[in-house]
Amino acid sequence: MTSQLHDTTFRGFASDNYSGVHPAVLAAIQAANDGHQVAYGEDAYTERLQEVFAGHFGEGIEAFPVFNGTGANVTGLQSMLPRWGAVVSAKTAHINSDEGGAPERVGGMKLLTVPAEDGKLTPELIDQEAWGWGDEHRAQPLVVSITQTTELGTAYTVEEVRAIADHAHSLGMKLHLDGARIANAGASLGVPLRAFTRDAGVDVLSVGGTKNGALGAEAVVVLNPEASEGLKYLRKLNMQLASKMRFVSAQLIALYEGELWLENARHSNAMARRLRDALDAGIAAGELPGLGFSQETQSNGVFAVLPEGVADRLRERGFRFYDWDASRGEVRWMCSFDTTEADIDAFVAGIREELAAR
Amino acid sequence: MTSQLHDTTFRGFASDNYSGVHPAVLAAIQAANDGHQVAYGEDAYTERLQEVFAGHFGEGIEAFPVFNGTGANVTGLQSMLPRWGAVVSAKTAHINSDEGGAPERVGGMKLLTVPAEDGKLTPELIDQEAWGWGDEHRAQPLVVSITQTTELGTAYTVEEVRAIADHAHSLGMKLHLDGARIANAGASLGVPLRAFTRDAGVDVLSVGGTKNGALGAEAVVVLNPEASEGLKYLRKLNMQLASKMRFVSAQLIALYEGELWLENARHSNAMARRLRDALDAGIAAGELPGLGFSQETQSNGVFAVLPEGVADRLRERGFRFYDWDASRGEVRWMCSFDTTEADIDAFVAGIREELAAR
Amino acid sequence: MTSQLHDTTFRGFASDNYSGVHPAVLAAIQAANDGHQVAYGEDAYTERLQEVFAGHFGEGIEAFPVFNGTGANVTGLQSMLPRWGAVVSAKTAHINSDEGGAPERVGGMKLLTVPAEDGKLTPELIDQEAWGWGDEHRAQPLVVSITQTTELGTAYTVEEVRAIADHAHSLGMKLHLDGARIANAGASLGVPLRAFTRDAGVDVLSVGGTKNGALGAEAVVVLNPEASEGLKYLRKLNMQLASKMRFVSAQLIALYEGELWLENARHSNAMARRLRDALDAGIAAGELPGLGFSQETQSNGVFAVLPEGVADRLRERGFRFYDWDASRGEVRWMCSFDTTEADIDAFVAGIREELAAR
Amino acid sequence: MTSQLHDTTFRGFASDNYSGVHPAVLAAIQAANDGHQVAYGEDAYTERLQEVFAGHFGEGIEAFPVFNGTGANVTGLQSMLPRWGAVVSAKTAHINSDEGGAPERVGGMKLLTVPAEDGKLTPELIDQEAWGWGDEHRAQPLVVSITQTTELGTAYTVEEVRAIADHAHSLGMKLHLDGARIANAGASLGVPLRAFTRDAGVDVLSVGGTKNGALGAEAVVVLNPEASEGLKYLRKLNMQLASKMRFVSAQLIALYEGELWLENARHSNAMARRLRDALDAGIAAGELPGLGFSQETQSNGVFAVLPEGVADRLRERGFRFYDWDASRGEVRWMCSFDTTEADIDAFVAGIREELAAR
Repeated sequence: MTSQLHDTTFRGFASDNYSGVHPAVLAAIQAANDGHQVAYGEDAYTERLQEVFAGHFGEGIEAFPVFNGTGANVTGLQSMLPRWGAVVSAKTAHINSDEGGAPERVGGMKLLTVPAEDGKLTPELIDQEAWGWGDEHRAQPLVVSITQTTELGTAYTVEEVRAIADHAHSLGMKLHLDGARIANAGASLGVPLRAFTRDAGVDVLSVGGTKNGALGAEAVVVLNPEASEGLKYLRKLNMQLASKMRFVSAQLIALYEGELWLENARHSNAMARRLRDALDAGIAAGELPGLGFSQETQSNGVFAVLPEGVADRLRERGFRFYDWDASRGEVRWMCSFDTTEADIDAFVAGIREELAAR
Repeated sequence: MTSQLHDTTFRGFASDNYSGVHPAVLAAIQAANDGHQVAYGEDAYTERLQEVFAGHFGEGIEAFPVFNGTGANVTGLQSMLPRWGAVVSAKTAHINSDEGGAPERVGGMKLLTVPAEDGKLTPELIDQEAWGWGDEHRAQPLVVSITQTTELGTAYTVEEVRAIADHAHSLGMKLHLDGARIANAGASLGVPLRAFTRDAGVDVLSVGGTKNGALGAEAVVVLNPEASEGLKYLRKLNMQLASKMRFVSAQLIALYEGELWLENARHSNAMARRLRDALDAGIAAGELPGLGFSQETQSNGVFAVLPEGVADRLRERGFRFYDWDASRGEVRWMCSFDTTEADIDAFVAGIREELAAR
Repeated sequence: MTSQLHDTTFRGFASDNYSGVHPAVLAAIQAANDGHQVAYGEDAYTERLQEVFAGHFGEGIEAFPVFNGTGANVTGLQSMLPRWGAVVSAKTAHINSDEGGAPERVGGMKLLTVPAEDGKLTPELIDQEAWGWGDEHRAQPLVVSITQTTELGTAYTVEEVRAIADHAHSLGMKLHLDGARIANAGASLGVPLRAFTRDAGVDVLSVGGTKNGALGAEAVVVLNPEASEGLKYLRKLNMQLASKMRFVSAQLIALYEGELWLENARHSNAMARRLRDALDAGIAAGELPGLGFSQETQSNGVFAVLPEGVADRLRERGFRFYDWDASRGEVRWMCSFDTTEADIDAFVAGIREELAAR
Repeated sequence: MTSQLHDTTFRGFASDNYSGVHPAVLAAIQAANDGHQVAYGEDAYTERLQEVFAGHFGEGIEAFPVFNGTGANVTGLQSMLPRWGAVVSAKTAHINSDEGGAPERVGGMKLLTVPAEDGKLTPELIDQEAWGWGDEHRAQPLVVSITQTTELGTAYTVEEVRAIADHAHSLGMKLHLDGARIANAGASLGVPLRAFTRDAGVDVLSVGGTKNGALGAEAVVVLNPEASEGLKYLRKLNMQLASKMRFVSAQLIALYEGELWLENARHSNAMARRLRDALDAGIAAGELPGLGFSQETQSNGVFAVLPEGVADRLRERGFRFYDWDASRGEVRWMCSFDTTEADIDAFVAGIREELAAR
């Protein structure tokens, strides 16, 4: 009855969503089991989660656990916007490129996107779309949304977030942060989560768990209560209200009550660093002809450029990863909380062999 | 780190969502853990789930795991309807009364509701709203949606479902079944799930797991491929696509691969029966003045009518349950897979004492 | 090039939308022509319209001309509601029965409907659906919408509107009035428009022109600025913003600047009265066997019940009107601003002959 | 009662929406008046309109009159797309930049936009966003939408439209054409409307009337019935169904039955040409220092670049026009069916004087 249908020893570099659940998270689910708890969020775990997040982000915050990142982003953004509002984001933002149009279709919001080479907005980039207030022909740009760490593995510094927040606020706009990989950002920057969110001026946040060892748990966290309205109702009508919410909250408690979020993120970041360093060294030694990198490695993803054919041959060897921009040979290698040094070393060896064989 | 924040020995009668996770479901989650699996549904467990459901519903079905019941209903219904479509349902249907308007707001569908005393539609009731095809001023009634078991604890017989399906189909309409408690219906009717779904003419189905021992797992199951379109895309854009889907599928496999679904449902039904029988006996003996029942007890819920004040006094004693229609003293008592005979007997004793004390 | 493709002498009783444009309205369009005026509402006519409506409804109102009644209702209601809001209305309300689901699909609002024999809500009827605030599982009932005159030809008295407004406000709800036939109501009640709208507690209003002699012109009028938000943007995104708005506004000015609205409405009401009186007299004289009426005749519509076959035979004679509830022989006869006494007399004669011939 | 509130002799260059109604269109409205006609499109004029458009576009087409251009575009596009569909358009397209987000919010469609210097898409530009079919994370690009003439006054050649249509169709995509200024395109290209629409592979079309002398009349015209579904219902639920539709259709008949569409468009194009030619001559003569043009003048709009301050000084002289991209001194000068040679000559004189005065 408890079927095991897969090879539990295989790990690839395709996505931090391909990994499973950290044992401590599973243990937390187990500990929250048995007995009856009020459904839909009035349970002891969801109550405790408020304190856990208040520990990170300060008093006065409110956390709304949801099922997934798309749900967190759309619901959080919707709570920040009137029906006529629009969101300025990078073209590469997950909300624009990977959510099947949910922000527009379910959220009813228009996205005003700008190209950003490294996935990071700046005040100047924001200005490309932040205009036209009061003109009813233009969807009103009332929120800026940034992703931390970005979809390209880069991280905003504290100062960069603050500059965006100040700029947005000076324009009467609010700041949303998609923190599906917020833990990786915290680990990368080496500062508390609060430093680059609440203290830097972020108003509403998506806090991720799933990509960092949870089974499936994200949360909308309201840092500035004046910037968000109606999340209680929006979560329900957006079909993101878990009945047995205690188990969603328990996962987030497991990650964020202590330092598991940080340990997991440090580890996956370190594995990406190990991969990048080994390859950089090989390049410096002239041993990896044709290999390059398209982005800085600032978290748990490495964006590389490979000579034609190499990506496919690596996959033939059994390594798993995605093309990012196939037209220019760009690939994405993601590390996870369970990636091992041996995984990295074997991958580096494979890359060396394939590049040498050319 | 694995905080246990609640009394694991307390159980009430408020909702089958208040119970936790059946141990075999947790074990299945554990067994699906470790190693990497492709995200978003291309994993071994979601593949296996297709076979499991084919075992229940026959070849040619397709199952789409989702997060919750609202997500299953809205996404399934949306796949059955053009943008101008409407759904005929009972006024008491969950989609109408308990989903915060998600069918209208997210699904973009109009609900055409009819009063149904026992929560069950009939061809005659359907005819109250099944008219006006071709008239663009009227949202087009193209789907009938029934709930099995109903929100009032009643169960359609196989013949009743078939009569509705035949009627709907004769009108060019499709039949949707909200099976959040489909297991309780199977246990109540004593027939295979297929008998009152596919074989009776149901086109698309929501199959529930959460109320029957899962952590959080439901599925849209397409029985008639011609009645549904685009579920792959709709699930994503409705924000119901789990990244680590293997764990959602593993829960449903744990329930539906063997007979756990049936055992759990038989048990919760039996507990409701035990409660009803004990109280019926008390009534027959003239020992329970003022107690009555507003619905047949055909699954895991008992709908009773209490004299004024009794419900509150039972709650003061620590029993947990909801008022259903406070204006007429109606209450709902739900049993769960983990309800014990001792729970029932203590509750019966409490009811007896309170009614005797009046 | 100026084709005339129809019989300009034919008039029926099917709908007040079947009539054309009052000559004074056409003259107003002509007078507003030539030269350039700022598009999208910043023209002299739309400015003047504000004063015209302020004359009716008092200072501080704001009027937003739109294309049609559905647009006025959905846009006005949307401006009164958060995304999670619901509207309590009569089941027979135009927003529920004749707008193709636009309130739900475009407006994203749920309608909570109650049966109302004469099309009129009461505080008691409202209470059937006005409950559940704070429960996120229930679409939040935050607005009551009434139609004046109703879809069944009846008119709320001033006191009835006030009772509803007081009740709604006491529940924290707002009051919307669909005034597609507001002129007929004013004519019927013999009071200023303000008496049964602003002074009676209505917050937001749809003011109709089309059914009373306009070519196509309606307006959302905000009586209580605190009850409505964002109409400027909502009108545009709901695709109800006319580019050459001067011509929409000019129509409404033509009707409402002087007493044309009242003259037209008095006339159509009087024609319905003439029809009803003639038939009542016939019934009293025992000359019209089988004829009855299902509603009071309080405006420009007569709702009658005919013996089987009579409606079709009247149509065979060339009279035009709709069945209302065919199952009980109910028909609707609408009078318009251009209905003549001769039209009525010929119709009465036709009815007499058909009933006598049975 | 027939107030004239504006200066009927003033004309500017702000927009072709600022002009009024051509006398022949008003005469057509007058001719369609009186008597009763079936509402909502079953009238003699809407029937005749089908023939008129069939004369232009060939047999088998179907025309759906609507209120305005946004309504035509959103409704037409929606009829071409499943709920998960997306539209590839130029970033400058009216649907993206000037419809307040209606395509996303009301239509539920995602726009995938690409920069296009002259407002015109090409197969290569389309390829920037035409990819990812079958990937549910990506809104599915299933329609290409082009504007003819474009928002920048340029016109696609017949061959350019055909190349786009062939490319779109080869990708399984459909082609939509926003023809708010289709008459100007026909006049500019000197070919029948059919040549660059149906014969070039366009599937669904918005046909404009308002900008070319109508009071307010547009139509969705389906050229390829297999490319569109449900327009009858979509028009109603998008609140674009006129009750007295005869008057909308009569306007379009007035324009398109004979050659009024062409005469009006030829005239407004010629006025823009006159303006451009006069200024080009001045530039060639070295008399207009600092004046330049940002776009070809291929229809009724001239896009110019002025030295700083000149635009405002021209407005101080009473000329009316809009900044287009203020950051680079770009302005838009639109001509209309009623623009006179004297208007142009006075404007040229004003421009000369302001540039000379610097």
